[in-house]
Amino acid sequence: MPELRKDPILGRWIIISTERGKRPTDFIIEENQTKGGFCPLCPGNEATTPKEVLSYGRKNPAPDTPGWSLRVVPNKYPALVIEGDLNKEGEGIYDKMNGIGAHEVIIETPDHDASFSHLPAAQMIQVFWAFRDRIIDLEKDSRFLYAMIFKNYGRAAGASLEHSHSQLVALPVLPRMIVSELEGSKSYYGYKDRCIFCDIIRQETRKDIRVVSRNEHFIAIEPYAPRSPFETWVLPINHHCSYVSTTEKMMESLTAIFSEVMLRLDACIPNVPYNFVLHTAPLRSETLNYYHWHFEIMPKLTSIAGFEWGSGFYINPVPPEEAAKFLKEAEI
Amino acid sequence: MPELRKDPILGRWIIISTERGKRPTDFIIEENQTKGGFCPLCPGNEATTPKEVLSYGRKNPAPDTPGWSLRVVPNKYPALVIEGDLNKEGEGIYDKMNGIGAHEVIIETPDHDASFSHLPAAQMIQVFWAFRDRIIDLEKDSRFLYAMIFKNYGRAAGASLEHSHSQLVALPVLPRMIVSELEGSKSYYGYKDRCIFCDIIRQETRKDIRVVSRNEHFIAIEPYAPRSPFETWVLPINHHCSYVSTTEKMMESLTAIFSEVMLRLDACIPNVPYNFVLHTAPLRSETLNYYHWHFEIMPKLTSIAGFEWGSGFYINPVPPEEAAKFLKEAEI
Repeated sequence: MPELRKDPILGRWIIISTERGKRPTDFIIEENQTKGGFCPLCPGNEATTPKEVLSYGRKNPAPDTPGWSLRVVPNKYPALVIEGDLNKEGEGIYDKMNGIGAHEVIIETPDHDASFSHLPAAQMIQVFWAFRDRIIDLEKDSRFLYAMIFKNYGRAAGASLEHSHSQLVALPVLPRMIVSELEGSKSYYGYKDRCIFCDIIRQETRKDIRVVSRNEHFIAIEPYAPRSPFETWVLPINHHCSYVSTTEKMMESLTAIFSEVMLRLDACIPNVPYNFVLHTAPLRSETLNYYHWHFEIMPKLTSIAGFEWGSGFYINPVPPEEAAKFLKEAEI
Repeated sequence: MPELRKDPILGRWIIISTERGKRPTDFIIEENQTKGGFCPLCPGNEATTPKEVLSYGRKNPAPDTPGWSLRVVPNKYPALVIEGDLNKEGEGIYDKMNGIGAHEVIIETPDHDASFSHLPAAQMIQVFWAFRDRIIDLEKDSRFLYAMIFKNYGRAAGASLEHSHSQLVALPVLPRMIVSELEGSKSYYGYKDRCIFCDIIRQETRKDIRVVSRNEHFIAIEPYAPRSPFETWVLPINHHCSYVSTTEKMMESLTAIFSEVMLRLDACIPNVPYNFVLHTAPLRSETLNYYHWHFEIMPKLTSIAGFEWGSGFYINPVPPEEAAKFLKEAEI
C-alpha cells in the first residue's frame, strides 16, 4: 500500500509509491531502456491492462476488446490504490495516511503512432469528454477531494509509454498547488469583488501582446510570469469554476483552440516534450465566483535545478511577449 | 536588464532572464551540444571570466592569474545583474521589479576532471569556507535579502559546465521556499516552544531508521517525506540558524560528513546527477530560535511531470528507510 507523508515543516505531501519500489540499480538500468516493443495500450492488448472504466466508439458490447476509439483503464502501476478506507495517523512529529486514490490512464487514440498535437478534432474532442466523464464518475466517491488530470509527452517530460495517453489521479487531500490557487484567487476576490482570471483575460485582451489565439468560447495566452519558455494557458472566456460545466459548444471551441496551440508549439519547437494540467475546482465544490478553470501547458525546455529547488523561483530565458509572437507567427 | 515578475494568483516570482535570451531554435540545438572543448573555469583561462571576487591559495598577489586552489567569479550569463537600484512597479494587475542581484560561480577546484564527491577534505573544506565568506560579503549590500547557494551536478540536474562548481544567487526578495520554511518552523515553535529541526534530529536519532551518518557536530538523514529517492539532509546537531556562525571545528565536521554522504551516494548510484541547496537564515537576520540551517541534497532520479506541476505533490518510489539502509551499507 502506498503511503502519503507530510513534510512537517512545509506541509508538503509526498507519495511513497511502494508499487513502484525500486532498488538503486534500477535507476541505472532505466537510463538505457530501449523504445518500441510491446505496447499494452494498443488495440488487441486489452487483456494486459486492468479492466477498463470507460470506452468510446466500440460497436460490440464486450468491454476490454478492440474496436474502441478511446479507452480509460486503471494504471497498472498506480501511485495510489483504490481499495481500502482512508486512515490518517501520526508517527511522532510526522503525519501520514495510507495511499488511497484512483490512478487512471486515458488512452487517447487506438493509433500507436498518433501524437496528441496532430489528432483530428473528432478524436481530440473525445479526450476532453473523457476528462469530464471521469471527473463526474469519481465525484461520487466521497473519499476523494480532487481529480488531477494531466498529460506527460516525451521522455524529458516524464512519459514512460510512447502510445498517446493522459492520466487522472484522484486524491484524498487537496493538492497544495490548488489550495494556493484557491487562496490566491479568493483573496483577490475579497479585495476587488472580481475573479482574478476574468481580470487577466480582460487585461490580456486589451493589451494583446501575450494572446496566442482566441475563439468563441476560449482564449490562449502566455501568462505574465511563466515558469517555462512557451508556457501557455487556455481559459474559457466566460467565468466557469468547474470543467464539469463545459457544454457541447464549448467542447468544440476548446478542441479547436487546443489543437491550434499544440500545432503552433510543434511548429516553433518540433516534437517538444511538454506537460499539461487541468486546473479545476475541487470535487463536489459549490459554484465558486472567485475561481476559473483552465489548462496550463508547460513545454519542458529548461531544467529544474538547485536554484529552483531551493528558492521556488523559476528562471525563464524567453519573455512571454516574445513567445506569443513566435507562436502567432508560426505557420500551421 | 532581467526582470522579476510575480504570478498574480500564487505570488510566485519568476525571473525573465534576458541576458540568456533565446529563440525557439536555440532549444533544438542545445540538446545536441557536445562535451569537452574550451573550459573558462580552468587555470590559465582566468581572463575569460568576469573579475574574481574571492580566491584562495594563490601565492602571488595578482588576481585573475593561475595558482589558485579555489576561485569565485561573477557568472558571465547572470540570471540577475548587480548594477542598478531596485525598482518595483505595477503593470495593470501585475507586479514586477528589475532583476537586481548577484550571481556568482564558485570554482571548487583547479582540476577540470575532479568531481566534488571525490575532492580531498583539504579541498572540499575550502568550498564550505567560500560559501561563508561570500555570504558575509554580500550581507553588506542592503539591496539583497537572501543568498541562495546551490550546486547542480550532471546535465540532468541542470549543469551546463563540466568543471566542478557551485553557484550563489543573491536576491532582492525572500524566496517563496524560504518564506514557507520560516513560517512553518515559526508556527511549530509557537505551539511547542521547540525548534522543529531539533525535534526531527531527536526523533531520528532515537528511531535510527533514517540516519545515514553522524559525527561530532553533524547528522545526515533521509527526511521523512523526501521529494526524490535518496534525498539527504545534513544538519548541525546543535541549534544554529545561520551558516555564517559555523566555526572551524564545525567546518571540519561538515566536510567529513558531506564527503562521506557523497561517496555513499556515488557508491549506490555511480555518477548520479544531483542538486544540493544550502538553507540558511536571511541576510542580516537576528538569531532565530525556530530556524535551523541545513543542506538538502537531491539526486535527480525522477522526473517532474504533469502530476507534480499540477499538484505540488511528489511521487517517490523509494521509502527513505530503504534509502538510508542502502546508503549505510554501501562500501566506500
